[in-house]
Amino acid sequence: MENQSTEEKKGGKCGGDYKHLVLGKFTQETTQQEIDDLIKGYANLVSLVPPMISFRWGKDVSQENLNQGYTYIFESTFDSTEDIAEYVAHPAHVEYANKLLPKLEKVIIVDYKPVAVHP
Amino acid sequence: MENQSTEEKKGGKCGGDYKHLVLGKFTQETTQQEIDDLIKGYANLVSLVPPMISFRWGKDVSQENLNQGYTYIFESTFDSTEDIAEYVAHPAHVEYANKLLPKLEKVIIVDYKPVAVHP
Repeated sequence: MENQSTEEKKGGKCGGDYKHLVLGKFTQETTQQEIDDLIKGYANLVSLVPPMISFRWGKDVSQENLNQGYTYIFESTFDSTEDIAEYVAHPAHVEYANKLLPKLEKVIIVDYKPVAVHP
Repeated sequence: MENQSTEEKKGGKCGGDYKHLVLGKFTQETTQQEIDDLIKGYANLVSLVPPMISFRWGKDVSQENLNQGYTYIFESTFDSTEDIAEYVAHPAHVEYANKLLPKLEKVIIVDYKPVAVHP
């Protein structure tokens, strides 16, 4: 992985080793157009913030009634926790977060390195 | 993807099209040994529940202080929401959930189909 170019990594289906996961519940006042624009703005950070490798998102479709109100999931990938810290502090991210966070009634942010278990 | 064998899919790095994501906060009384055993038990469901394609997990390492107490992330993948429903209803899953859930003080479960955005 260390010799892989950023372009190759950005093209990879799953991106980097670390996941930066945001679960959000938008405020009732937020329109669908605002949500769509915010998602595009989030994706655009991949171009603006060098250590951000990839971005994907999805809307909750679960039937178990355990989403606790969190209906939007945003996942981005990074190579390390240091890269995530650089992303968090990057002016383009700070500017974006200042647009996104006021539209969220509730938010959870977790970072983790997914590992497989072989029982 | 439709012609791909389950074995091929299970060997894939990212698994199926749909993510089934569980965020959990274990109760204070839960020991590390119990957590380790529960993670192995979760991974073992891949062998027991046919539509479950893959399982990975991670512990939150975020610095932003927005994890809201959710420190364990379990992600599994499926090909469809119907497959997730089959998994949820499967006796092996029901038995496992009856072991896991009492150890969780808080839990969030979301299902989503991650999509990329090209701004």
